[in-house]
Amino acid sequence: MSTASPAARIFSSDNTAGTSPEIIEAVTRAASGQALPYGADDSTAAVRRRLSDVFERDVDVLLVSTGSAANALSLAALTPPWGSVLCHRDSHINNDECGAPEFYTAGAKLVALGGDDAKIDPEELRTAARHKAGDVHSVEPSVVSITQATETGAVYTLDEIRTLGATAAEAGLRLHMDGARFAGALASLGCTPAELTWRAGVDLLSFGATKNGTMTADAIVVFDRSLTAELAFRTKRAGQLAAKMRFHAAQFDAYLTDDLWLRNAAHANAMAARLQEGLKAIPEVGLLGAADANILFCRLPQQVIEGLLAEGYAFYHDRWEPGVVRFVTSFATTPQDVDDLLQAVGRHAG
Amino acid sequence: MSTASPAARIFSSDNTAGTSPEIIEAVTRAASGQALPYGADDSTAAVRRRLSDVFERDVDVLLVSTGSAANALSLAALTPPWGSVLCHRDSHINNDECGAPEFYTAGAKLVALGGDDAKIDPEELRTAARHKAGDVHSVEPSVVSITQATETGAVYTLDEIRTLGATAAEAGLRLHMDGARFAGALASLGCTPAELTWRAGVDLLSFGATKNGTMTADAIVVFDRSLTAELAFRTKRAGQLAAKMRFHAAQFDAYLTDDLWLRNAAHANAMAARLQEGLKAIPEVGLLGAADANILFCRLPQQVIEGLLAEGYAFYHDRWEPGVVRFVTSFATTPQDVDDLLQAVGRHAG
Amino acid sequence: MSTASPAARIFSSDNTAGTSPEIIEAVTRAASGQALPYGADDSTAAVRRRLSDVFERDVDVLLVSTGSAANALSLAALTPPWGSVLCHRDSHINNDECGAPEFYTAGAKLVALGGDDAKIDPEELRTAARHKAGDVHSVEPSVVSITQATETGAVYTLDEIRTLGATAAEAGLRLHMDGARFAGALASLGCTPAELTWRAGVDLLSFGATKNGTMTADAIVVFDRSLTAELAFRTKRAGQLAAKMRFHAAQFDAYLTDDLWLRNAAHANAMAARLQEGLKAIPEVGLLGAADANILFCRLPQQVIEGLLAEGYAFYHDRWEPGVVRFVTSFATTPQDVDDLLQAVGRHAG
Amino acid sequence: MSTASPAARIFSSDNTAGTSPEIIEAVTRAASGQALPYGADDSTAAVRRRLSDVFERDVDVLLVSTGSAANALSLAALTPPWGSVLCHRDSHINNDECGAPEFYTAGAKLVALGGDDAKIDPEELRTAARHKAGDVHSVEPSVVSITQATETGAVYTLDEIRTLGATAAEAGLRLHMDGARFAGALASLGCTPAELTWRAGVDLLSFGATKNGTMTADAIVVFDRSLTAELAFRTKRAGQLAAKMRFHAAQFDAYLTDDLWLRNAAHANAMAARLQEGLKAIPEVGLLGAADANILFCRLPQQVIEGLLAEGYAFYHDRWEPGVVRFVTSFATTPQDVDDLLQAVGRHAG
Repeated sequence: MSTASPAARIFSSDNTAGTSPEIIEAVTRAASGQALPYGADDSTAAVRRRLSDVFERDVDVLLVSTGSAANALSLAALTPPWGSVLCHRDSHINNDECGAPEFYTAGAKLVALGGDDAKIDPEELRTAARHKAGDVHSVEPSVVSITQATETGAVYTLDEIRTLGATAAEAGLRLHMDGARFAGALASLGCTPAELTWRAGVDLLSFGATKNGTMTADAIVVFDRSLTAELAFRTKRAGQLAAKMRFHAAQFDAYLTDDLWLRNAAHANAMAARLQEGLKAIPEVGLLGAADANILFCRLPQQVIEGLLAEGYAFYHDRWEPGVVRFVTSFATTPQDVDDLLQAVGRHAG
Repeated sequence: MSTASPAARIFSSDNTAGTSPEIIEAVTRAASGQALPYGADDSTAAVRRRLSDVFERDVDVLLVSTGSAANALSLAALTPPWGSVLCHRDSHINNDECGAPEFYTAGAKLVALGGDDAKIDPEELRTAARHKAGDVHSVEPSVVSITQATETGAVYTLDEIRTLGATAAEAGLRLHMDGARFAGALASLGCTPAELTWRAGVDLLSFGATKNGTMTADAIVVFDRSLTAELAFRTKRAGQLAAKMRFHAAQFDAYLTDDLWLRNAAHANAMAARLQEGLKAIPEVGLLGAADANILFCRLPQQVIEGLLAEGYAFYHDRWEPGVVRFVTSFATTPQDVDDLLQAVGRHAG
Repeated sequence: MSTASPAARIFSSDNTAGTSPEIIEAVTRAASGQALPYGADDSTAAVRRRLSDVFERDVDVLLVSTGSAANALSLAALTPPWGSVLCHRDSHINNDECGAPEFYTAGAKLVALGGDDAKIDPEELRTAARHKAGDVHSVEPSVVSITQATETGAVYTLDEIRTLGATAAEAGLRLHMDGARFAGALASLGCTPAELTWRAGVDLLSFGATKNGTMTADAIVVFDRSLTAELAFRTKRAGQLAAKMRFHAAQFDAYLTDDLWLRNAAHANAMAARLQEGLKAIPEVGLLGAADANILFCRLPQQVIEGLLAEGYAFYHDRWEPGVVRFVTSFATTPQDVDDLLQAVGRHAG
Repeated sequence: MSTASPAARIFSSDNTAGTSPEIIEAVTRAASGQALPYGADDSTAAVRRRLSDVFERDVDVLLVSTGSAANALSLAALTPPWGSVLCHRDSHINNDECGAPEFYTAGAKLVALGGDDAKIDPEELRTAARHKAGDVHSVEPSVVSITQATETGAVYTLDEIRTLGATAAEAGLRLHMDGARFAGALASLGCTPAELTWRAGVDLLSFGATKNGTMTADAIVVFDRSLTAELAFRTKRAGQLAAKMRFHAAQFDAYLTDDLWLRNAAHANAMAARLQEGLKAIPEVGLLGAADANILFCRLPQQVIEGLLAEGYAFYHDRWEPGVVRFVTSFATTPQDVDDLLQAVGRHAG
């Protein structure tokens, strides 16, 4: 295939993988016949029912084309334009969406907080959540956004989320979860989707799927259903209401069938763990931070980095201190892919 | 299939059809292997080359998830927030996108003009294009947006477009074409894509595909390539830059291969023509307006409308004067579908 | 004075007048001593009390620098970005504010309705108030905005306002009044401020003052006080919260003392009536439309228009059909000014 | 006077002062006669000429009602919505304008940099100015905004500004100066206005006046006059184009006559210096940071703070570490006011 490397040597992101065969089959089944547009079709309704089952309560669902859209729409529903979004300074919404949250919220301000492993520090949140609240000279703290799993591959524990959620609730703020890698976090924690979200205070979830097996569909899962009407208008107005929604729905239907989403995520996590184990055995490699899901940071000697690049491997390596490298696995990564990479690292380190 | 009616009785819109088999095949081929994300893959580059061939010049291309996004992004690149968009009062951007143009442009004003068959009246444009230009108390005329084919199924002739384009150019305005049904217009006119667009003054084209055979991908074709950098930022910021762009590209690649797009459009037009011919033969039916592409308006006796609805037919019938009905055909409409409908109309009229 | 014509020959707008001596005295008194900024001073509080007395109920007040700001802030508090503002096609917000409403509302749509004398036609409102309500493909009807007195100098009767207010309320829409010439309307009708506003359903009032005697201060009067907190944030965010608010407050305090505002308005109206009477006596002049306040439209022979211009008179004359002219009087217009104008018209007509 | 404290014990901000007598006189002179609205009057033109003289080149000028409006309009003209504004983390635009920059720019991002005395650290700027430039996933570095004098009362040296300006220029960024206390900085440095602005690379200047003697008028001084047309539209659209502009102009005309602006600023600075000298002599007081203009930070024993508050003194004292206090003097502060304060500090410290 012209669009793919002959071997899977791209470890820069899980978005370089294709899609699961089950997804393709579902889309193929959806290809013929007539269906009502804009989400009025049966299959979109089925996705809502499936996600209500997954989350053990009635939820509303909006299927959109990217995770950035899911995040930005969610935040727009949770903060007024003069509000602030409290997030981690390393968060995707703060760094990697070209200001989509600012665009969708009509200019709300992202307030960047610190904390290890790209998790918001609870003390910083406590202060920020009440900073100049009610003071018209300052933006109004309005929503907390956490990423689960985080941008560095760590996973918030249930207790950590509950603590942040309680702080938000006490200060009258709403809670958004950027779940671009939600399935991976769930697979890592072994808890229920309900525990990880609304039971811990989450109002809106960006339920990521593209990175974990779908093609072009992510979702917003609405726990506070009083927000649904507004989200529906915002989604249409953003050019995110697909006419042939059946094709988004088909992807999600397959994704949620027979736990494909959880199996894919568990596999990606297992591949990262396999990689981590292998790297531990190479003395020249230093592992960095938590690697709870499918993202792994480590420190490599310069000649290893150069050797891997020369072999056609792709990964981020020049965004942090010299020597720091990020590897990301996906549902499509094979044990052989991992072992080949390990062998290459070892070869260049030796 | 649960999402489809057993027989094709939905004539409310061409967005109720599925997708062409060639599209599914291309998406299936794109499913495996690794590819660079966000449009850096080979297949997205191939789409740009194909569209450059189609339009007989180097164009830039942005693949987005909906036609509303294509329109709104285009307009945002062509007008400042204090500008106005001159469009027909029946245009999709004015009525059917929930203010997406206003959102993306940061509040530009749509100025609605009249004209038969949802075509902008050239005289009205001449006046509006200079209305209070340069006066800070008023929004600044900035861009003309025309829909080809129009919302009522008419097709602007080349001369008509050239005239509007010249008026725009003389007044210093830019020209956008909403080509949600561009292929249908082209099939109807028999001219070249270049003649219909940049040679007539079009700066940006919303190159619609979803209504004519793709699943979830439309495009912006950029003739004025000085706008490309801005459009790239705007597209990302709008949550419209797909991570797995290969799946949008695959759809387009198939759509543009072996003239699938033109064949699909010609078929949809032929089905509308067949319907028109059949309706002409029924004395109780009055045809209304131009039906140059795949949309047809007519006047039906009330008992015909009710009879069709009772049989499970779907179509718009209560948006205009009593008795006025809109039928839309698609690439997937069969001659039998049309003949069945005609028979039903005749039956209830008789 | 260098900034003024030697004689008062400008009848183009009431904004060409200066300010009342009482206003200057109040500002002079406010010039020394210390005061808390941003409206926390005593004098701003006093304005709120005065306006509460005027309107016979507790109101909140925001003092801003222009009428456009008052309108745009009010509309932003009454409509979501995906909402529509139903207004007259000749309204100031629709034509003369360079899209300030669209800017402040983050892109809401102004829907222009017809009606004589720049008053919204009640039937058109009834239809528009429910047009596609709840349909995500269309902007949501959210607020009705009426101008009192209207842009053509007519004044809505109490019954007319109540009718529009009832239509708005039944459809769940809010009601905004652009009272740029509110005092003039009040003087014309002889009713109470309460009757003209909240008793008729008005939620927010742009309480114009600049055109009627203040220098640089207009106000928003808030009847629905649940909107106050939001308006306070929006006002600051718009750069409309004056640090030295005492100077806005001083203007308003004088404006509201001893009925200065009503006396000024009654005088301006009387000057327009005097002009109207005088013009009636000149056979070559045709009076046009209602002239209930301080704006008067008439039809003049071309040689009269040219003669007046040649004498240094200023007025709008080329915005409508040939021969149509607008004259505006103000609190500062003298009977002599009017008589001089009448004499000049007569001279050129003769 | 009811709005003022009997004695000048408010040292919380220079915006608690009234206005200079010369300003009142000018406004009084402007009160009568007719003048063209919206800045077409002679007096507004005269302000432009005066400021062109001050800055030794033709400048354009927009008179607005607040410093926040001047800042936000300037930034909107210098950055696209997907751009970033590089500013100090303590800057007014970042903390004290309720997101006005985000509102006016349609959602640009403020990137907060560090540096002593609220001056941007040149090294941090060098990095930030090129951070992910051209990368559509990230906001685009577009403009540097510096505050002169800074929010902590320091003044950038000419060399410091030139260095920041050169960094901005090399990276293709524009330079904005928030000159809320521009006159104070100028008085402190003794250089020319031209040296402090356009000769050092400044494109747009928020020329603050309200804090230094005017009532309700600040200005944008436009050095890059290619921005003027855009700024004019933006100003109107923001509700910042005063109808009776003559009253803004009159304030500025007096402010710029006979160096009133420089005399006022020099006086305010002298009062801060007097306060500083006096505090130095009190051993319990610790001076903090640079006090180059009219703002002074110091550390006071808790009983001094409490004693001053009990006597009716007002100043910020609970925004930083315990004991840290900010005093601000103004053009209206008298030597006696300062001496009284010093005596009170000494009394409570003793």
